[in-house]
Amino acid sequence: MSLIVQKFGGSSVADAERVMNVAKIVTDTYAKGNDVVVVVSAQGDTTDDLIEKQMEINPDASRREKDMLLAAGEQISISLLAMAIEKLGYHATSLLGWQAGFETSSAHTTARIKRVDASRIQDELDQKNIVVVAGFQGISRYGDITTLGRGGSDTSAVAIAAAMHADLCQIFTDVEGVYTADPRKVETARKLKEISYDEMLELATLGAQVLNNRSVEMAKKYGIELEVLSSMTKAPGTIVKEKPKMEKMLISGVAKDTNIARISVIGVPNYPGLAFKMFSKLSKKKINVDIILQSIGHDGKKDISFTVAKSRGKEAVEVLEDYMINTLGAKEVLYDEEVAKISIVGAGMESHSGVATKMFEALYDAQINIRMISTSEIKISVLIDAADADKAVKAIHNKFFD
Amino acid sequence: MSLIVQKFGGSSVADAERVMNVAKIVTDTYAKGNDVVVVVSAQGDTTDDLIEKQMEINPDASRREKDMLLAAGEQISISLLAMAIEKLGYHATSLLGWQAGFETSSAHTTARIKRVDASRIQDELDQKNIVVVAGFQGISRYGDITTLGRGGSDTSAVAIAAAMHADLCQIFTDVEGVYTADPRKVETARKLKEISYDEMLELATLGAQVLNNRSVEMAKKYGIELEVLSSMTKAPGTIVKEKPKMEKMLISGVAKDTNIARISVIGVPNYPGLAFKMFSKLSKKKINVDIILQSIGHDGKKDISFTVAKSRGKEAVEVLEDYMINTLGAKEVLYDEEVAKISIVGAGMESHSGVATKMFEALYDAQINIRMISTSEIKISVLIDAADADKAVKAIHNKFFD
Repeated sequence: MSLIVQKFGGSSVADAERVMNVAKIVTDTYAKGNDVVVVVSAQGDTTDDLIEKQMEINPDASRREKDMLLAAGEQISISLLAMAIEKLGYHATSLLGWQAGFETSSAHTTARIKRVDASRIQDELDQKNIVVVAGFQGISRYGDITTLGRGGSDTSAVAIAAAMHADLCQIFTDVEGVYTADPRKVETARKLKEISYDEMLELATLGAQVLNNRSVEMAKKYGIELEVLSSMTKAPGTIVKEKPKMEKMLISGVAKDTNIARISVIGVPNYPGLAFKMFSKLSKKKINVDIILQSIGHDGKKDISFTVAKSRGKEAVEVLEDYMINTLGAKEVLYDEEVAKISIVGAGMESHSGVATKMFEALYDAQINIRMISTSEIKISVLIDAADADKAVKAIHNKFFD
Repeated sequence: MSLIVQKFGGSSVADAERVMNVAKIVTDTYAKGNDVVVVVSAQGDTTDDLIEKQMEINPDASRREKDMLLAAGEQISISLLAMAIEKLGYHATSLLGWQAGFETSSAHTTARIKRVDASRIQDELDQKNIVVVAGFQGISRYGDITTLGRGGSDTSAVAIAAAMHADLCQIFTDVEGVYTADPRKVETARKLKEISYDEMLELATLGAQVLNNRSVEMAKKYGIELEVLSSMTKAPGTIVKEKPKMEKMLISGVAKDTNIARISVIGVPNYPGLAFKMFSKLSKKKINVDIILQSIGHDGKKDISFTVAKSRGKEAVEVLEDYMINTLGAKEVLYDEEVAKISIVGAGMESHSGVATKMFEALYDAQINIRMISTSEIKISVLIDAADADKAVKAIHNKFFD
């Protein structure tokens, strides 16, 4: 008998039919003799509906009250799923975040899990109940409802798996697993059987959006084996673990991110500390900078280019324009949203040379211009024109996987 | 400085505009120097929407999970109201039933309040916050969410007022107070300035539906002064208290109840204990019987008539038909939904004779046939044809109040 944690996102429980489908998956797992803890997000549109209600009344509401409002979403989905499990003839108990023992920091809307006291969950399992837990939420030391922020339900699931030493934590999504490239765009993309935590982390930050990063970090820290799989098909998914079986591949995937913009500050005076001053302006506004490229200076001037999330792009330009030009004497600030970041990720890179060369060759063959490059131990990213993005992914994928 | 508890029902917070209106009433009360605790029900249609979601998935869901689902309704309304109060520039804290200290029995969907530990509410008041509490809900000794059943939010408000020794408990509704008759039907109906708990209790059971009975009983027990008033107008409402100032009226109101049905069991053998057996059949099904009339027996047979709630009428007939006819040898069971109960209520009755006569005279003048009569110390009820109901209320009202 194993203890299995299963997590279902909002689209998996969007309506009555899907809730029943999830109940079927859960009870099938239970009927095989496993203890099952299910973590659920709010139903598809519930969160949007609640935010709309808030915006009508007070767009600047306190974060404590926002958490109180949003946490109602999972309360609805957990009770409905428990009812669906009852309908199939099994016993279920739904538990809110605080009932399930999620003690968090008091940073409302972005709380961090401090401890999971899983005693109530264990009591329910001991009574042979399937336990349905509200993801995304917890309780602060002040007894207030908190939420974990974006992707919080994945983290909730992994935290329970860690606290209870679960044998497996299954994350059900609308894709069948982790692919070598987006299967909707690249016909030859294949599903990976296994992947390491580190590769998964790089892929998540690169726009693959399969798993929330915090949850992968936590799984890595506690050695929790994850499986990413679809709630719609019965196909086995992708296992995320420390040392996956090597599939004799140099890289595990090609990812595309078009939600970025490039900012170039032209003609920055070549004094020490100017780059630091510039980036600290941005970090004060909590604007994250990704790839950075600095030109070799000449005539006492240099150009600095970097990428930011598209959603923060205009704000970053506003922050910099006045300061860089009027205070520091730069010539101009350029802004370009028509860019894409293409990345390859693979633990195999560490021990194999020539991976970067192979990637650049693929792009050259496809006549795609590389505008910026960034590398880490298991990742190589290039910035190219947005219009070339899909062509680039295909070219690189074919080069490595054909 | 006073402590005032204000309760708003679902229609008072049905949309953003109404929530803002409630926030205005609450902050006006606070701005006058009072401590304010607000108790709120779920928004207008939320409860219906949640029940619809449940019915799609599992009409026979456990009562524990039903409570979990429904309690999400007040969670939404309290956070929205707190946000609206913030919008007006005041500090507010919303609290769920369990956070507000509502300890209840574990009878899910019909839980009873056992204790209110108001320490968290007091802490928030001490910090000068307006406290917004979820009505209708609490927590069992097992740490599970419970709900109080129909009209539970009124009871929540009175329970807080009792636990905190509040100076006043205001129940905001969609009417301006308690009237001598339904003002939509009787033009000359007038609003009462004051009324006793006992009269209010009789009126509530008689279809006036202004206040939930459990809440009035609790207010009476703890001596909490209630005010029933409208959330839409600024007019003073009706005060419910132990010894109201007498307004020199024999009766305080005329009420109509058309949600009843009459059942007549004809030709019941005249043996002792048969009536007891019959009514115990109904009480086992938790079907409440109201007015009872038993004919004088002849030929060893008698007829027994009584009224039940219309919603339970058909069920009552099914329970009785087989048993009374085949087992006990009664002749037949008749069923009539076209009846109405008209009642007059007044503490003045106790010391004045002739009240009943005056009522019957009014009905006689209006040529309305009385089919059954029932009296208590402060109430007289008659059963008449439903078609005569409004005419009867007017005739009686004019007799007593003109």
